[in-house]
Amino acid sequence: MNYSPAQEIRLSCRDGKHTGITRGVALGYVQCNLVVLSARYAYDFLLYCQRNQRACPVLEVTDSGCPEPKRCAPGSDLRTDLPRYAIYRYGQRIEDATSITDLWRNDSTAFLIGSGITFDWAFEQASIPTDRHRWVLRSNIETEPAGIFHGPMVVTMRWLTPEQATQAAEITTRFPFNHGAPIHIGDPEAIGADMENPIFGPPVARVPQNLVSVFWACGVTPQEAGMRSNVDLMITHAPAHGFITDLLAKDLELT
Amino acid sequence: MNYSPAQEIRLSCRDGKHTGITRGVALGYVQCNLVVLSARYAYDFLLYCQRNQRACPVLEVTDSGCPEPKRCAPGSDLRTDLPRYAIYRYGQRIEDATSITDLWRNDSTAFLIGSGITFDWAFEQASIPTDRHRWVLRSNIETEPAGIFHGPMVVTMRWLTPEQATQAAEITTRFPFNHGAPIHIGDPEAIGADMENPIFGPPVARVPQNLVSVFWACGVTPQEAGMRSNVDLMITHAPAHGFITDLLAKDLELT
Repeated sequence: MNYSPAQEIRLSCRDGKHTGITRGVALGYVQCNLVVLSARYAYDFLLYCQRNQRACPVLEVTDSGCPEPKRCAPGSDLRTDLPRYAIYRYGQRIEDATSITDLWRNDSTAFLIGSGITFDWAFEQASIPTDRHRWVLRSNIETEPAGIFHGPMVVTMRWLTPEQATQAAEITTRFPFNHGAPIHIGDPEAIGADMENPIFGPPVARVPQNLVSVFWACGVTPQEAGMRSNVDLMITHAPAHGFITDLLAKDLELT
Repeated sequence: MNYSPAQEIRLSCRDGKHTGITRGVALGYVQCNLVVLSARYAYDFLLYCQRNQRACPVLEVTDSGCPEPKRCAPGSDLRTDLPRYAIYRYGQRIEDATSITDLWRNDSTAFLIGSGITFDWAFEQASIPTDRHRWVLRSNIETEPAGIFHGPMVVTMRWLTPEQATQAAEITTRFPFNHGAPIHIGDPEAIGADMENPIFGPPVARVPQNLVSVFWACGVTPQEAGMRSNVDLMITHAPAHGFITDLLAKDLELT
């Protein structure tokens, strides 16, 4: 049987062979952030995503209790097919795991939210390097709350040359359903980007003079809201260890 | 005090002075379809909209029990500020009303869904006439069900000249969050458009030879799903009697 690159990587995660990050893996396929919550939080969470659509583009919500995302990746299993999961209890990340089968409940509901890593394919095609100078940071932009969920917008920062920056802005504008155009270009302080405590990437002292900081609304935003809501159990992908769907990045592109 | 055209029309509805259709009214402002349901159906309904985003672009969901859409039209009241409401009990449209204050409950939740009438402004600017040859029809395209909600996609059909048709396709592509590009152009039978029993507009025998039928996913789709779900009470706007928000159509345009 022939597997697509997306299926290959998912099966490799399922077998425990791939446990590393997914940046650069199965390039061209849509990558997703994962959030798993009990059904009793699902309405508030879905509404939170609706109210903050730019940061939280929902690609699929599974039926309660069903671990298969039938639209994005039929046949896959969200309990095993990611390389690494982060497990939060009452807002604290208490442990990581490579499978969550033992934590899955009858009412577990999985949300797949578009990841900025999906852009890497389009950037690489335009010769914009994606293998470094990328961070995930908290900002001081407040999101619209919904029920128990609230918190700051999380942003992806990339350092680019001025030419790359305009090109990257142009490219991402064509993906309105996957964060779209940058929300900010230039001074990180203007949006209160927390460079000292990145969610992903090393702490940053200052931006090199010849590079521009470009910021996009980030799909990690709803996880941050989940942490602050103190729910008894939330399971997410571990940062940069996303879920690879069968969708092609180019299919999300507005042409 | 100076009111905007959108505020004027809403207040005029509230005072019972405007009870007619909203096509051509406050042109340039975003018009919405309204669905009001009990909070216990809200998750299934929001998920239905998420799974059928093209037909159901949710612009706002009010907090349970709150009749004010704080994001789209602060200060307005969804119980009085539409010209005409349709009231459904167990899937049957039992009566129309010009106010729903007496039917509003502590857990009523209002959904505002982008309307194709919003395009009229952009069409008029491009000299595409909008005052006739427009229908709302059921198709045989099945939507993705969610919980108790399911049903066919409802479509807007416009008859246009071939030149206007290509232009209209181009224009609406720039509104990805308001139905976007046409879902079909040409033979109505190819998507099973029910021309004999339009939801809005007179029955149609056949398309004039010199005109092309152009079809968009329509924001009436979730109402149709609500009807088929047999919920005890659903309140919607009466066809073509929409809610005028403070949002500008051009702000929904991708530029």
